[in-house]
Amino acid sequence: MSADKTNNTNTSSQANTNAQWGGRFAGGPSDIMQAINASVSFDKALWKQDIEGSLAHAAMLAHTGIITREDEAAIRDGLAAIRGDIEAQRFDFSEALEDIHMNIEVRLSERIGEAGKRLHTARSRNDQVATDFRLWVRDAIDGLDQQVASLMRALATRAEAHAADPMPGFTHLQTAQPVTFGHHLMAYVEMLARDRGRLSDTRKRLNECPLGSAALAGTSFPIDRQMTARLLKFDRPTANSLDAVSDRDFALEYLSALSIMAMHLSRLAEEIVIWCSSPFSFIRLSDAFTTGSSIMPQKRNPDAAELIRAKTGRMTSSLVGLLTVMKGLPLAYAKDMQEDKEPVFAATDAAVLSLAACDGMIRDMTANTEKMRALAGSGFSTATDIADWLVRVLKVPFRTAHHITGRLVARAEAKNIGLSELSLAEMQEEEAGITDDIFSVLTVEASIASRTSEGGTAASNVSREAKKWLAALNRVSA
Amino acid sequence: MSADKTNNTNTSSQANTNAQWGGRFAGGPSDIMQAINASVSFDKALWKQDIEGSLAHAAMLAHTGIITREDEAAIRDGLAAIRGDIEAQRFDFSEALEDIHMNIEVRLSERIGEAGKRLHTARSRNDQVATDFRLWVRDAIDGLDQQVASLMRALATRAEAHAADPMPGFTHLQTAQPVTFGHHLMAYVEMLARDRGRLSDTRKRLNECPLGSAALAGTSFPIDRQMTARLLKFDRPTANSLDAVSDRDFALEYLSALSIMAMHLSRLAEEIVIWCSSPFSFIRLSDAFTTGSSIMPQKRNPDAAELIRAKTGRMTSSLVGLLTVMKGLPLAYAKDMQEDKEPVFAATDAAVLSLAACDGMIRDMTANTEKMRALAGSGFSTATDIADWLVRVLKVPFRTAHHITGRLVARAEAKNIGLSELSLAEMQEEEAGITDDIFSVLTVEASIASRTSEGGTAASNVSREAKKWLAALNRVSA
Amino acid sequence: MSADKTNNTNTSSQANTNAQWGGRFAGGPSDIMQAINASVSFDKALWKQDIEGSLAHAAMLAHTGIITREDEAAIRDGLAAIRGDIEAQRFDFSEALEDIHMNIEVRLSERIGEAGKRLHTARSRNDQVATDFRLWVRDAIDGLDQQVASLMRALATRAEAHAADPMPGFTHLQTAQPVTFGHHLMAYVEMLARDRGRLSDTRKRLNECPLGSAALAGTSFPIDRQMTARLLKFDRPTANSLDAVSDRDFALEYLSALSIMAMHLSRLAEEIVIWCSSPFSFIRLSDAFTTGSSIMPQKRNPDAAELIRAKTGRMTSSLVGLLTVMKGLPLAYAKDMQEDKEPVFAATDAAVLSLAACDGMIRDMTANTEKMRALAGSGFSTATDIADWLVRVLKVPFRTAHHITGRLVARAEAKNIGLSELSLAEMQEEEAGITDDIFSVLTVEASIASRTSEGGTAASNVSREAKKWLAALNRVSA
Amino acid sequence: MSADKTNNTNTSSQANTNAQWGGRFAGGPSDIMQAINASVSFDKALWKQDIEGSLAHAAMLAHTGIITREDEAAIRDGLAAIRGDIEAQRFDFSEALEDIHMNIEVRLSERIGEAGKRLHTARSRNDQVATDFRLWVRDAIDGLDQQVASLMRALATRAEAHAADPMPGFTHLQTAQPVTFGHHLMAYVEMLARDRGRLSDTRKRLNECPLGSAALAGTSFPIDRQMTARLLKFDRPTANSLDAVSDRDFALEYLSALSIMAMHLSRLAEEIVIWCSSPFSFIRLSDAFTTGSSIMPQKRNPDAAELIRAKTGRMTSSLVGLLTVMKGLPLAYAKDMQEDKEPVFAATDAAVLSLAACDGMIRDMTANTEKMRALAGSGFSTATDIADWLVRVLKVPFRTAHHITGRLVARAEAKNIGLSELSLAEMQEEEAGITDDIFSVLTVEASIASRTSEGGTAASNVSREAKKWLAALNRVSA
Repeated sequence: MSADKTNNTNTSSQANTNAQWGGRFAGGPSDIMQAINASVSFDKALWKQDIEGSLAHAAMLAHTGIITREDEAAIRDGLAAIRGDIEAQRFDFSEALEDIHMNIEVRLSERIGEAGKRLHTARSRNDQVATDFRLWVRDAIDGLDQQVASLMRALATRAEAHAADPMPGFTHLQTAQPVTFGHHLMAYVEMLARDRGRLSDTRKRLNECPLGSAALAGTSFPIDRQMTARLLKFDRPTANSLDAVSDRDFALEYLSALSIMAMHLSRLAEEIVIWCSSPFSFIRLSDAFTTGSSIMPQKRNPDAAELIRAKTGRMTSSLVGLLTVMKGLPLAYAKDMQEDKEPVFAATDAAVLSLAACDGMIRDMTANTEKMRALAGSGFSTATDIADWLVRVLKVPFRTAHHITGRLVARAEAKNIGLSELSLAEMQEEEAGITDDIFSVLTVEASIASRTSEGGTAASNVSREAKKWLAALNRVSA
Repeated sequence: MSADKTNNTNTSSQANTNAQWGGRFAGGPSDIMQAINASVSFDKALWKQDIEGSLAHAAMLAHTGIITREDEAAIRDGLAAIRGDIEAQRFDFSEALEDIHMNIEVRLSERIGEAGKRLHTARSRNDQVATDFRLWVRDAIDGLDQQVASLMRALATRAEAHAADPMPGFTHLQTAQPVTFGHHLMAYVEMLARDRGRLSDTRKRLNECPLGSAALAGTSFPIDRQMTARLLKFDRPTANSLDAVSDRDFALEYLSALSIMAMHLSRLAEEIVIWCSSPFSFIRLSDAFTTGSSIMPQKRNPDAAELIRAKTGRMTSSLVGLLTVMKGLPLAYAKDMQEDKEPVFAATDAAVLSLAACDGMIRDMTANTEKMRALAGSGFSTATDIADWLVRVLKVPFRTAHHITGRLVARAEAKNIGLSELSLAEMQEEEAGITDDIFSVLTVEASIASRTSEGGTAASNVSREAKKWLAALNRVSA
Repeated sequence: MSADKTNNTNTSSQANTNAQWGGRFAGGPSDIMQAINASVSFDKALWKQDIEGSLAHAAMLAHTGIITREDEAAIRDGLAAIRGDIEAQRFDFSEALEDIHMNIEVRLSERIGEAGKRLHTARSRNDQVATDFRLWVRDAIDGLDQQVASLMRALATRAEAHAADPMPGFTHLQTAQPVTFGHHLMAYVEMLARDRGRLSDTRKRLNECPLGSAALAGTSFPIDRQMTARLLKFDRPTANSLDAVSDRDFALEYLSALSIMAMHLSRLAEEIVIWCSSPFSFIRLSDAFTTGSSIMPQKRNPDAAELIRAKTGRMTSSLVGLLTVMKGLPLAYAKDMQEDKEPVFAATDAAVLSLAACDGMIRDMTANTEKMRALAGSGFSTATDIADWLVRVLKVPFRTAHHITGRLVARAEAKNIGLSELSLAEMQEEEAGITDDIFSVLTVEASIASRTSEGGTAASNVSREAKKWLAALNRVSA
Repeated sequence: MSADKTNNTNTSSQANTNAQWGGRFAGGPSDIMQAINASVSFDKALWKQDIEGSLAHAAMLAHTGIITREDEAAIRDGLAAIRGDIEAQRFDFSEALEDIHMNIEVRLSERIGEAGKRLHTARSRNDQVATDFRLWVRDAIDGLDQQVASLMRALATRAEAHAADPMPGFTHLQTAQPVTFGHHLMAYVEMLARDRGRLSDTRKRLNECPLGSAALAGTSFPIDRQMTARLLKFDRPTANSLDAVSDRDFALEYLSALSIMAMHLSRLAEEIVIWCSSPFSFIRLSDAFTTGSSIMPQKRNPDAAELIRAKTGRMTSSLVGLLTVMKGLPLAYAKDMQEDKEPVFAATDAAVLSLAACDGMIRDMTANTEKMRALAGSGFSTATDIADWLVRVLKVPFRTAHHITGRLVARAEAKNIGLSELSLAEMQEEEAGITDDIFSVLTVEASIASRTSEGGTAASNVSREAKKWLAALNRVSA
């Protein structure tokens, strides 16, 4: 791979013939220069947005009389033909033409002649690429938003079904208090809802059109930036031409949103890995979401969950990479900013895959509710219920109740029995006021049923939340 | 420093006496355990928010009848006294009590007895710390928002004054086209406006109250979460108790916003460093914002700008650190999450200092407008104006015009003269249609004046933008 | 905290009086400038190294006749007194004097007069701080190296004791093949050995002395850099003065080594958390290394392990932070580089604590060997042994044997029994050649015992490795 | 791009037919599972190393009698044919076969039948991929080492030529003291020498052979790991099978070394950008290393330097990404670790390009020595020489001399003249003892010539260092 780049055998002369900015250059760019400089190998992903942007630009140029209607028509036809070629994979991308923008513009001029050479009037690659890239990120956000909603729906659907099924609630991966499996799944619905909120805010903030900022200073042509903004469905033109060509906030904010979302998915993935482990066995994934081993025939590995967990690295690193690139760059455009696209593309791919795989696993998994229920009651998980009972019934101050309960747990632990297996007499040795009534709060079911505070794990709460979300999600997508 | 921690000679017995959760433990936590576990050395920064949260919690407990009005009054008085002690620096923070929450609760019980032990009813440290930390970040956002607005005002004020002063506009740090110094400064106003937008969105999303989620499952006490949310000026309670105690999105989103803002400041700082260099000499900073050298008596170093540039590292790294911490944590609370505060505090300090220093430098700097004007015309900076003239007047297609201009530049470069020093005859050798009129677009002033497109650098645009922003900023702060 | 910095009420006049480089400044540095510029709040950690470096520098100045023997003696006495003051916490660090270097030099001049003012001859803060910081990092490496060795000894000691105790070996957290607990622990010994190797290589590369590089260009005084290098136990002086004052590779390489080590510790910590969970229950930590809950009296949380896992964030982020700071800095010294120390100090603290806590947990933990042994045989963990038997005895190609075994596992799984519970007849239905002999490889013990390949999990291997390492570790420390 | 992955239309049945581990699976992996799981799109880069490893493994299997000599010969021929196919781009990589290892093994079995199915005896993909990847990284290190040496040679060659050419030495980008251009270039030779040292240490530490560790526990076959290690030019086999398949330290250490190197290159790149700017004009790059503009015909942009500066982001982020991936992974192999390759490949590509482009620029650039010389004497750059003269000749303590010089600078600054233009009388007003002799140290030439301390900028030093390095570099490569 690396070798290919240094052994590059393209002749300079050929490169020179094609270079659009080469009027003044006596010699051609060296091979290494071309290898480091060219971006078409990755920025061809922008081809749709580039054509979209050029169509709007041409329409505006014609509307304002900067080019003729005939030129515009030729441009429109030419770009439509190029679009067809690319879709049919007939388009030959040339590294000597550096980037997707030059590839398309040169092809256009080859096809339609003079009119093609007028397209770049009142435009620069600086505002062009800023526009294309915003359009791409906007499209990506719209796609991801649908995927996140789908995953939320999958989670809420499972949550509704398991609204009353107990599982051990953990803190520090130690059994803490019983919760329901549905409640646990709904926690991720909340996280993902925030992720959608961040994506939506990012979209709003990016939705300004840089086109018409030209190289950095604006232009002397009588362009209509409101029109191009409107045609490209931006809310408005950007306000400062220097800022417009130097700004990659939208990419950074997008990567931040993806990084936080990836962190959420990594938590769910970690739980899936742990839940699938033999000692836990809380859930089972089907063959569709596990893989085998090249040496151990019995393995059923939750590879998808592990890969989702790992993709966090891809997303965090994309964000760090672009923050590093942008650090300390003087205005306006600098070539450093060409390094903006690959991290965004890589993170988007990782996000698309992670969401799809997560969605699939949530729909695929089978919950082992018996195993979860059994463990939900172990580990003195209702100790807090004793403390609360002491406060509620005996009016013992909470902190004191906490200490009494601690001693009851120590007794049970020493005898290797559960809290409900302690005798009333034993309990009364720690706190004389305890009555038989205390046993009513020691079951998993009673514990869960009692957590009716807003946001608590009582089954009725969970069921209501799941229904509320499903209704909201269906409303939107309808 | 490190050595202190491992040579820690605190006796376990002392630690044990004070530990609030120690009812069940036979031995005390070891010294190393205390050293790694205790957080009071940094989380004491939350003391105000912790008292605020406890006051709201106690008011709610009394309102719902979970504690008596008398208990609430005692708690209120006790917390007021503690607040006074901390403000007067009379409060002795104890590492054996682990964190700020236990430090305050234990002190309260020492002061007011039983009532103090009732405060923690229907609450856990998990929801308590989540609430305190949100309040802290919310306060920090409010403070930073003011600082950013102040910096924007400083920039817009200078921009208005320099709305018509030419400077060389750079791309790739190469002279590209003339712009005005005011236009350049206004680019940063746009960036900072987006930073405020991000902080504001973060604030909206964080403004939900976790209090009442208890350890992870909610509580069986008849609490009123709407009331505590209202008292603490949150928009609403959080919706899922497991999520509420496991969520640190607000900190991550805050750090993302600061990282992007720091990147903006690093660009301005880099420009200040370059502008202060002897070959550029675009601006001069006074003694108030430069420092000298321990060995070279003549130095006038822009240290503040360099430190602002460097603080980017602090902010990016805080974000990376917390993303790393949160990766793959199973629900609900895990102790890992205690590592959330130091990065947030460090990044906030860095942001406060950077904004203040940046604000100071912008107000302090003296622009060398003559030097900037002189350089604005060098480097064939009006070449684009020739190309545009060829398009506009001779109807040459832009791409062709670009090539003709390239040849004119090559001629001027070969003779080591400016474009305006080429004779008409020389120009006509490249393009016969060129007339005398072309010389009218070759001055810096004409070039700038012509860039009247929306967002362009024409002085009238810049002045209007600066005024618009100053009015908006003053309106808000009035 | 933040507020303190902006409300800073130090008067400029006071600052001005003390500033050492202030000869030329008419006004004093502003308060905000002092707040962002001063580093003494953290770089005072270098005090020992600063004195050490000054003693060597003074000895060299006297040796070469640049100062007199009397001046050197005065400086030596003065620095000894300052050292005593700092150790006795009688030294009043002044923020107006910026950093530890100026604090000590000014105090020295106050104490001993003219001689003190001669100390800075042929030296600059640039080479001084580079020297001090290298000495500090070198000391930190030496301390950490001891800690890592201690942890390796703890692991190898436990490994030797558990050399033959089976546990389920996992891949993808799915039971894969039986291994021994000792073998698992020895994997970490290997990792830590590489960590020591990296620390040692870092130490070798940093061990060159920058002192005498002066500000950036060297000096005209006839200094003897070999002598100062020797006195400070450096291997040699640095070779290029510009590089010497601009280089922070040693800090970056150190942080890289710590980041990789932290990652290792995070893996062990994750395993400890999982092993302590109720469904696994592979190990138990005593009260000394667990903590309780403020609301749930029964909890025994592996907080130390969680904090070690989380400290990874601190170390990775310190590395990222400093890489970001150094990116794109022109030579030579820039003030940005002052941001080098806090990440190094923070990462060192985290490393010291993490190693100590890890060491403690390894020595503290009780292994539940019965639970591990029981699980080691579940999940068809000896399936690979069947495949290998088919290859070895029946000469079936491995890939075919793998498929046959897969079908045997499917049979056992369908009947919900173990592989050894399949009848010979059932086995022969899949592969006619199978004989009774196959049952001999289906036990955990047989499986482990058979893995005698170099580095394999056979108890004899594990025991030998543990002994080898213990001998090597004891040899070095003797 | 993303869309392609989710719209994947491969039928499950086809996938199932080919899956090597699929014996037990009733259904095939779902499309999304295949999309996230398959790695052949990137790990095919390992094809050479995979064949190399398999050849060594087969030779060992035959040597130890585990397979026959005939089988080995068949395997050798089969792999040679596959190698030929891949080199001739006739090999059809299949995503359904997941990775490069399965692609090659399946093709081998198709070609040579049973013998091919015996190749995987006593091996697992876990140790296979660990071996292949180490071999790849080792090859990459060897290639980069040559490139770094070439760049050092380019720098030292230019440095020797410019050993005596003055330039302004900067700190804080402010003129500090005169240095020579050669001295400045040699600073980078020192940095790069440390980079080579780090690469070399990484190579030593990685050079242990994991092959034979099998899945995680070693194997019961009588393999000879010394033999495979020797055949693959490793120093020895790895010592612990669990560690061997779980370890990616070599990749992390490699990425650390590249990150630090990238930081070095970013500093040089930043300087090139600044030096090429019109106000500096220290150097000029030819057309071969600059590019033009799509709108501004006169531009000569140092794009290569900017891209090198930006690639820092790629390398730091690759390191962060992999550290994040590895955080908290339980032993042994987890699928997360499949995310190790893309960052390593991306960083290697970036390093190869950056080094080649940097090398090219250094050889290409023309130094404007007149401009540098002129600026070297401006900005009171010889002020330190005055202070040193006062110390040396008048025996004034340095700190006092520093203050006197400060006042002389202030005088010259007020009169807007250079230090050497002050009259003797004016100087004597500040310090009566000053004599005519002081003017002898005020020239750039005298200043540089005086810096003869080890590592100082005196031309003789620079020339000697450059020659020393050139000799060393030539010796090695001869």
